[in-house]
Amino acid sequence: MTESRHIEVLKHILGDKGLVTEVSDMVAYETGARYDQGRAAFIARPVSTAEVSAVVAYCVKNGIALVPQSGNTGLVSGSTPDGSGQQGVLSLDRLTAPYELDRVSRTVKAGAGLRLSDLNTKLEKSGLFFPIDLGADPRLGGMVATNTGGSRFLRYGDVRRNTLGLTVVLADEAGTVLDLSSALRKNNTGIDWKQVFIGTSGAFGIVTECVLNLEPAPRQTATALLVPASPDQVPDLLVAMEDALGSYLSAFEGMSGNAVRAALDHVPSLRNPFQNGAVPDFVILVEISRSSASREGEQPLDAVLEEVLGAIWERDDAPLADAFVGPPHEIWALRHALSEGVKHMGRLIAFDLSFRRGDIMRFLERMKLEMPQAFPDITICDFGHIGDGGVHFNLVVAKDDVRMTDPHFEHALREWVFTVAVEDFGGSFSAEHALGRKNQDFYDKYTPQEIRRLAAGLKAMTSPAQLGTVDF
Amino acid sequence: MTESRHIEVLKHILGDKGLVTEVSDMVAYETGARYDQGRAAFIARPVSTAEVSAVVAYCVKNGIALVPQSGNTGLVSGSTPDGSGQQGVLSLDRLTAPYELDRVSRTVKAGAGLRLSDLNTKLEKSGLFFPIDLGADPRLGGMVATNTGGSRFLRYGDVRRNTLGLTVVLADEAGTVLDLSSALRKNNTGIDWKQVFIGTSGAFGIVTECVLNLEPAPRQTATALLVPASPDQVPDLLVAMEDALGSYLSAFEGMSGNAVRAALDHVPSLRNPFQNGAVPDFVILVEISRSSASREGEQPLDAVLEEVLGAIWERDDAPLADAFVGPPHEIWALRHALSEGVKHMGRLIAFDLSFRRGDIMRFLERMKLEMPQAFPDITICDFGHIGDGGVHFNLVVAKDDVRMTDPHFEHALREWVFTVAVEDFGGSFSAEHALGRKNQDFYDKYTPQEIRRLAAGLKAMTSPAQLGTVDF
Repeated sequence: MTESRHIEVLKHILGDKGLVTEVSDMVAYETGARYDQGRAAFIARPVSTAEVSAVVAYCVKNGIALVPQSGNTGLVSGSTPDGSGQQGVLSLDRLTAPYELDRVSRTVKAGAGLRLSDLNTKLEKSGLFFPIDLGADPRLGGMVATNTGGSRFLRYGDVRRNTLGLTVVLADEAGTVLDLSSALRKNNTGIDWKQVFIGTSGAFGIVTECVLNLEPAPRQTATALLVPASPDQVPDLLVAMEDALGSYLSAFEGMSGNAVRAALDHVPSLRNPFQNGAVPDFVILVEISRSSASREGEQPLDAVLEEVLGAIWERDDAPLADAFVGPPHEIWALRHALSEGVKHMGRLIAFDLSFRRGDIMRFLERMKLEMPQAFPDITICDFGHIGDGGVHFNLVVAKDDVRMTDPHFEHALREWVFTVAVEDFGGSFSAEHALGRKNQDFYDKYTPQEIRRLAAGLKAMTSPAQLGTVDF
Repeated sequence: MTESRHIEVLKHILGDKGLVTEVSDMVAYETGARYDQGRAAFIARPVSTAEVSAVVAYCVKNGIALVPQSGNTGLVSGSTPDGSGQQGVLSLDRLTAPYELDRVSRTVKAGAGLRLSDLNTKLEKSGLFFPIDLGADPRLGGMVATNTGGSRFLRYGDVRRNTLGLTVVLADEAGTVLDLSSALRKNNTGIDWKQVFIGTSGAFGIVTECVLNLEPAPRQTATALLVPASPDQVPDLLVAMEDALGSYLSAFEGMSGNAVRAALDHVPSLRNPFQNGAVPDFVILVEISRSSASREGEQPLDAVLEEVLGAIWERDDAPLADAFVGPPHEIWALRHALSEGVKHMGRLIAFDLSFRRGDIMRFLERMKLEMPQAFPDITICDFGHIGDGGVHFNLVVAKDDVRMTDPHFEHALREWVFTVAVEDFGGSFSAEHALGRKNQDFYDKYTPQEIRRLAAGLKAMTSPAQLGTVDF
């Protein structure tokens, strides 16, 4: 069977609109959000679970490797084809149905191709929302495959916590459809199989539909920027805030001065909120919020936040050097501009690490101390989610740095950072970006033999054919 | 090798205190919390993961079946030996170490033999708690194996949501120890293997240590009993409460009039909170709570609750017929007495069902209508967790009912209830009690062939030897 025969069959399964083979139309699917430029044999764009199943079955039987692609916003080369031109991309971008809201159960059943922003727009009238807050705008299937967390993890958890059910197509010769689409919140009648497909980059099956938990949307919010008295007092500040505010606290984000300055430089419309414009070395964004409607006689949240900060401020051992309560849209605009700002500083080498909450600042301090010796002329521009232990540890080198022409430089840098983060601190080398070609080496290095054996066995049982960009 | 040789080796591994073989000392371990009377070959009581591993390895090599037992508070025959006298019980009751609190990370690493109440007592000073609220007092390993939910699921979720890491011993010839004891909140570097051991009744491995998420303990609470205007307005009432209160709402429990009357009859010290003592057909317990410290000028929670109920009451289509705000300890005392009260009404046939939240009352109404025809002279004494869809659907027959001497009667009744609950309503036949000998038949009946194949494969890969009372 020749390749054009395959294309013909796939066109028959998917219809004309469902299969892209024009070189110019494939580029967007072949190009990653930040890295990667691959070459695809074709782009399959199924509109239903049945079509996904038919495509997968055909490709498995004919030895055609598939790379599932959702919003293609990932940063670890998990959703783009390699350079061979032999892999097909299976895009979820047309798989946006069904959309079934169950208001009483606070759940929605949605197609895996629906974008996060579209889901929340559709939900607006209901007073509910899907509580994953991200800079990017992924589609649901990719969110499941990477188990994204984001900036409100502290309050609402990750995609795993908010996923009740999935429909999954396995990469076997039948294109088996696993119906795990329960909308039940409590159900302990065996293995919770959907967990296997969450955070595993699509290697064990393609998510086509999700049943998601929804939360009452926040209706009152207050935010502040805090300057800790010293890095080692950040944990104390976090504990003090949680102690005073309990589940009011919906974000506790860390931002390095370097990242803040980069954002302010790159987005001139941002207001510099600091006295005399002097950006501190490290800033914390806190948000408190209520999903309840505000009631007469109730203290406004801004006042609550100011009162709590005042009490912390007056302590003898106050972990706080300064604080700026300000409008949420301004403060979040700064936070959400960090990623773009950092990208424009130079060549970016990004890490998505996580730690126990008490270890984050210790890790950052150690890096500040040791990096200049080990790898000089690198600017550390970290920011992240101290409330859940996540750090987007960004390293920037000058655009014309000759080291970047050395293919070993970046890998050596990664090895060095991961050695400290994973081996010395017990941290994770992929907090919420999951796995892809880009960090395969580190999966291989840091995964114990016994776990690799189990993963390979599970892979053979579920999707024996190659699927995605990770080798489990 | 004779049996006494086995006993000798196990004694060598575990020490004298670690192995129980006296018939009189074994009874407590052979007897279930509500059902079951088995006969054990021995009771092994290891104090460490290493001892568990050694015992398991020896037993697997010598073909001795083990039943892991934690607090032995389960209701599905998941933790007691069968009647053969050939199975050993592996009790976690001495495996209470370690206990390592990480205040900043809000996590604790604890031995699987620690009791829930002991954990929360130890935590009191820290202001944190492990937020699973149950009538029973299980040990942690069993809570993981059944993925218990309880009365505050609505706010805090189940054991799965609150488990960050596990240490597990597999039933293979090596007694392999899987170290999944990460304390990270975000970590997506492959399959989240701990999920396989949560809610699967110990069949895939024995949990010996847990790393758990802790939450700020509630410091303000208000409760009320609500009488819905009609059963079909209960969902409306739930939505109205969530809409007004957001994440303040920490419990929304349903109680049938029959169950409430049984509790009031059985525990004379309980106050009857209803006007003229007339217990309504159906009552809802709501709790709102805050983990934040109360601040000056802040409205007390009782007043918040009264205000919200007042606003619902004044609606033209008010879903509320009556409401009684009362002290939390009194109202929870009534709620927690339901289980004991119902047990004393006669012979109890208990179901642990779950539904989508909007289906619960429809299911209960249908049962009320059809049960008298299908199975006369049965009293329905349900109560449960409407906020998360769980229903403890209790059926009571008279103590001297001759039908109970017919071994097929109970099974026929179960089949009939499950047919409606699972097939007609898409519900679960085990919401939070997980699986055991008692509901094996229904696992076999309701688990799709494809899922059974995967489960059997995973069983062979992890713990190929028999472990526990469920056949996956």
